[in-house]
Amino acid sequence: MEIIEKNTLQVAQQWIKSVSAPLENENSGIKKYQFDKENILNLLIQAQNRHELNENAPVQVMAEMIMDNYYGAVVTWCINKGKECTLIESVEHYCLYGLKPMINIYKERL
Amino acid sequence: MEIIEKNTLQVAQQWIKSVSAPLENENSGIKKYQFDKENILNLLIQAQNRHELNENAPVQVMAEMIMDNYYGAVVTWCINKGKECTLIESVEHYCLYGLKPMINIYKERL
Repeated sequence: MEIIEKNTLQVAQQWIKSVSAPLENENSGIKKYQFDKENILNLLIQAQNRHELNENAPVQVMAEMIMDNYYGAVVTWCINKGKECTLIESVEHYCLYGLKPMINIYKERL
Repeated sequence: MEIIEKNTLQVAQQWIKSVSAPLENENSGIKKYQFDKENILNLLIQAQNRHELNENAPVQVMAEMIMDNYYGAVVTWCINKGKECTLIESVEHYCLYGLKPMINIYKERL
């Protein structure tokens, strides 16, 4: 288990390192970011279509903030060499204390 | 102005690149992370002491989430080569749509 965790950390560290300072013609990091953001944005739009989120919800901005938190959780985990807080704990904390309050505002009927 | 923005981006890119995959005995990234987190945690504790935040506020977790968002905004800005959204816009969006709803929960009297 310790070996799996260590290898996963090393993969994440190398990935962040490789995409954080891209060359002029290098865009694999941007493509992955756009792919991830589109997936999150689509989930938010589907929730709007099902009237689970009201039409005032700023879905573009919300998707960008979820992305900042997601990528931020990975990069702080890499900087701290996997210590301080596990990646799963960070995501659980975000869902409970960050994402839920943000989404709750747009769950009410207009 | 364009030159200043480009240079700032390059400094941030090199910094993220250098701290994201630290060697075993390298800890400048961790030190900076701890310094930033302590500052944010102290602000939240001061707010609790002034009864602006109630005593149930999970200040440790809140400080970690603010850090994830702050570092995440920088890393996504680096990955996107400064495009998509400026760093100031990301922070403004976070203060309005992320931080404010999270803090508001703990502003009420117990």
